Amino acid sequence: MTTSSADLATLLVSCPDRKGLVASLAQTLYGHGANILDADQHTDPVAQMFFQRIRFDLSSLTTDRVALEAGVREVAGRFGMTWRLCWGHQRKRVAIFVSRHDHCLYDLLLRHRAGELDCELALVLSNHDDARAIAGQFGVPFHHLPIVPGDKAAQEDRAQALLDDAGVDTIVLARYMQVLSPAFVARWPSRIINIHHSFLPAFIGADPYRRAYQRGVKLVGATAHYITDELDEGPIIEQAVVRCSHRDTVEDLVRKGRDLEKVVLAAAVRWHLEDRVLAYAGKTVVFE
Amino acid sequence: MTTSSADLATLLVSCPDRKGLVASLAQTLYGHGANILDADQHTDPVAQMFFQRIRFDLSSLTTDRVALEAGVREVAGRFGMTWRLCWGHQRKRVAIFVSRHDHCLYDLLLRHRAGELDCELALVLSNHDDARAIAGQFGVPFHHLPIVPGDKAAQEDRAQALLDDAGVDTIVLARYMQVLSPAFVARWPSRIINIHHSFLPAFIGADPYRRAYQRGVKLVGATAHYITDELDEGPIIEQAVVRCSHRDTVEDLVRKGRDLEKVVLAAAVRWHLEDRVLAYAGKTVVFE
Amino acid sequence: MTTSSADLATLLVSCPDRKGLVASLAQTLYGHGANILDADQHTDPVAQMFFQRIRFDLSSLTTDRVALEAGVREVAGRFGMTWRLCWGHQRKRVAIFVSRHDHCLYDLLLRHRAGELDCELALVLSNHDDARAIAGQFGVPFHHLPIVPGDKAAQEDRAQALLDDAGVDTIVLARYMQVLSPAFVARWPSRIINIHHSFLPAFIGADPYRRAYQRGVKLVGATAHYITDELDEGPIIEQAVVRCSHRDTVEDLVRKGRDLEKVVLAAAVRWHLEDRVLAYAGKTVVFE
Amino acid sequence: MTTSSADLATLLVSCPDRKGLVASLAQTLYGHGANILDADQHTDPVAQMFFQRIRFDLSSLTTDRVALEAGVREVAGRFGMTWRLCWGHQRKRVAIFVSRHDHCLYDLLLRHRAGELDCELALVLSNHDDARAIAGQFGVPFHHLPIVPGDKAAQEDRAQALLDDAGVDTIVLARYMQVLSPAFVARWPSRIINIHHSFLPAFIGADPYRRAYQRGVKLVGATAHYITDELDEGPIIEQAVVRCSHRDTVEDLVRKGRDLEKVVLAAAVRWHLEDRVLAYAGKTVVFE
Repeated sequence: MTTSSADLATLLVSCPDRKGLVASLAQTLYGHGANILDADQHTDPVAQMFFQRIRFDLSSLTTDRVALEAGVREVAGRFGMTWRLCWGHQRKRVAIFVSRHDHCLYDLLLRHRAGELDCELALVLSNHDDARAIAGQFGVPFHHLPIVPGDKAAQEDRAQALLDDAGVDTIVLARYMQVLSPAFVARWPSRIINIHHSFLPAFIGADPYRRAYQRGVKLVGATAHYITDELDEGPIIEQAVVRCSHRDTVEDLVRKGRDLEKVVLAAAVRWHLEDRVLAYAGKTVVFE
Repeated sequence: MTTSSADLATLLVSCPDRKGLVASLAQTLYGHGANILDADQHTDPVAQMFFQRIRFDLSSLTTDRVALEAGVREVAGRFGMTWRLCWGHQRKRVAIFVSRHDHCLYDLLLRHRAGELDCELALVLSNHDDARAIAGQFGVPFHHLPIVPGDKAAQEDRAQALLDDAGVDTIVLARYMQVLSPAFVARWPSRIINIHHSFLPAFIGADPYRRAYQRGVKLVGATAHYITDELDEGPIIEQAVVRCSHRDTVEDLVRKGRDLEKVVLAAAVRWHLEDRVLAYAGKTVVFE
Repeated sequence: MTTSSADLATLLVSCPDRKGLVASLAQTLYGHGANILDADQHTDPVAQMFFQRIRFDLSSLTTDRVALEAGVREVAGRFGMTWRLCWGHQRKRVAIFVSRHDHCLYDLLLRHRAGELDCELALVLSNHDDARAIAGQFGVPFHHLPIVPGDKAAQEDRAQALLDDAGVDTIVLARYMQVLSPAFVARWPSRIINIHHSFLPAFIGADPYRRAYQRGVKLVGATAHYITDELDEGPIIEQAVVRCSHRDTVEDLVRKGRDLEKVVLAAAVRWHLEDRVLAYAGKTVVFE
Repeated sequence: MTTSSADLATLLVSCPDRKGLVASLAQTLYGHGANILDADQHTDPVAQMFFQRIRFDLSSLTTDRVALEAGVREVAGRFGMTWRLCWGHQRKRVAIFVSRHDHCLYDLLLRHRAGELDCELALVLSNHDDARAIAGQFGVPFHHLPIVPGDKAAQEDRAQALLDDAGVDTIVLARYMQVLSPAFVARWPSRIINIHHSFLPAFIGADPYRRAYQRGVKLVGATAHYITDELDEGPIIEQAVVRCSHRDTVEDLVRKGRDLEKVVLAAAVRWHLEDRVLAYAGKTVVFE
């Protein structure tokens, strides 16, 4: 509460499970004077993997950041850890990709303004020009990158250049209706978040809400996930559903889906920004 | 509240949508002195179909049941209605099919005893002998019909004979792990209710909870549906989900699934027994 | 789907339960050539009251609206019905009252723009000037009516005049932090919708989220209701809750509450605009 | 997964927040060869309190349990910790108290038999004789302790004697309709779990489902909590709600409440048995 976020740091680690992991990390941080505020850990008993998120206060450091990072590197090397150390004074820089549906875009902009999303909104990028005024209202730079049939690669190159210039860390696909190329995706591992509708049973292909209506589903859902090469199959970050009935028209299902998409995407983005999500083996650990 | 259920009747109709349907049925019932207690209706704007459930009180009839039924038949003929008239003094007779997992069986027996399910429990049938004692505790006849490999038809014939003898109206598959033959299913249209697990995304085949665990789903679900020839694809009556996380082991997912299966199956059975479910075009209208 | 909303009408009735109600109304509408699209009804067995919502198509009327309304009036008189006939070509005119928290205001404006709320937004009224720009972005007239201590009546009189001038039917209190006087409330029976937080157990008085935090509640909720003289005790239209845990700070609870308030208020407003809500005896019938 | 529960231990600690807590405990366990499987911690920023649950594997201990416990005691003394060390080979012994409603009793017995509740069911105790046969079916000793008006203390003394004889650790009030005396409650701090209905808004006193019906609530809920001197006001362990509507009769609300009570109570009992619940300052930390 009273600690300035600039004095906070978050350490995320994953590695094969071994004895002494928790003690070694805790001892290292303590040795540098860092005060652990929160430590959440998980062991996947099937994959025999260990995961931990430690949030700590730097204001009482007896050494400095460089020394602390060196200490963590030493422990990580010893245990074969994959690790990431995020300093609280460095807010993530986010790009929002959008097509024509603007409900998720609006929702993210409003939540950012309300202080729910701890990041810089670096830019809004779209293959259409529709969202320009919305981005403008919130003072976020807007880029219209139309897609020329047969030359999608060119558009992605221009997008990549914009992202590089703006120092973007994370891409949020807020109903961006274009499939990103494997080459593009490979440059952003576990850093592109997407939202899509979900049904029980699942529907593949076009016009899913109409098919859900025809099938008489009693639930519609939404799933937020990281983008990988497998379309709509990346590691799931968050899911939710809402009840429906025979009284719901296709339009009602679409409306209910829209409400879910906003909430589910916002939760996934917030957890990602707070370094609460670890992806591994096609799934995630979310330290809520 | 004060009307004895023996004095109640329920009329279910479906037909192509036309003007005057509601007035004609209401007028007919009124003309015989029946007092409409509840009338729920639905028009599917895509299929252009009309559905109605009318529950009415017979205690004030100015004619009799035979005359009333003739009146309904006349209107139904005029509008091309499919219809079903259920008299409150005739409780449905239910058979529960079960294999080894007994959580749904127990749940149904307890709910029946608590007065939640308005039916006669005619028999419990299983391809294993495990549930004999449970059925016995609740005073329900138990039949063990093992399946001889290569002669499933014989077992189904014996089952059909038992169902005929016991005057069964409805079959509930309370985790019955056998696929019923198309011939058997054809004899019980919209009268066999099944429960199965559901996931987002969907998994097909064996060991679904383990695969859901591997996929890192954040929700597990259950679906109750009528059995048709398409396995696990009949008209959906009810669905529900529950949250899960990376902390849930496969065993936790199974336990959560079990809890859902009980609640979802019980709701579907209750609505079916109260003549609240109309199946058409691969889906259902549920007049909750 | 294919019927223009200008050709639709909705009839809402409530009265002591009696035989022949359904038939009389259906027959009357049919007699004028109206085609019933939807009829939902409910009998409260404790209060012995009957409620019905009938939506019908006027395009096939064999008489006219004046004759139809006279016919309904005749039946209503016979059965002692309270009734309301809403013509589809007359969209309700809505005023939104707001104070400083603008999340519900923004949500309603966006839903209206997306076509989810079938009404005219006549004006936004606030005791602060903060929301002026937001209303302006959506082209809705904004009125700043500050409250002078000791002269709230004057502010309410000015509000009433603005509402009269704008032909307002319904007031939505979208986090309006002022208590309306009994005199003002009396002029708007079942026409002022409010949203407030809800907890289990309930907390009365100031700073409810902090008290919920101290009490360690595992759920936070929101309730939308009509305003009556009893503060936060009017007929409930909709409620929802969301899970929370010891990990949620007071700020997290506030954020979760905000999300709920938006969804719950929007649902209540939508149902009210579609004439789906009947208030009686301190509660509501909602024909979803 | 592969560790026998006899080789597991759980340490629960709470104390004023201080730097070095996590490192000291982890180092102590590591120093004795204990392998930390799970460590969950929480800092209440308002109360400035620290909480931790550590589950560890004893099979690799390089010293023994006595030495390990002495080591923990030393650290605890240094930091002013309240602590509890639970050895996996000692299953908790549970008494279920019940009156006439047996749905929660049945649910707990079935879950215990299904392996969901890791405890010994020591006895069922009731102020009525109704549940004797049910307890018998599951092989659990049953004690009928009727209450003589004006001499409740005598009944509680007999109950306490039975609990002492049976070595009971935890009491579950599975719809036990008697108020326990402060003297009795004082002997079982954070060891008596109760379940009760919850509504928004809250209702106090008799016949709550009827009052909820009259008030037209759209949700009914259930709350499981530890018993303290304040009736129905002890630290909340778990809560849940279910939707209802004007169509639900009082009986429907009771039925829905029953379903919730079973699930909510079972979750609270399970977490308590797995040493996941820490009560402090009138609320709980639940390390799910």
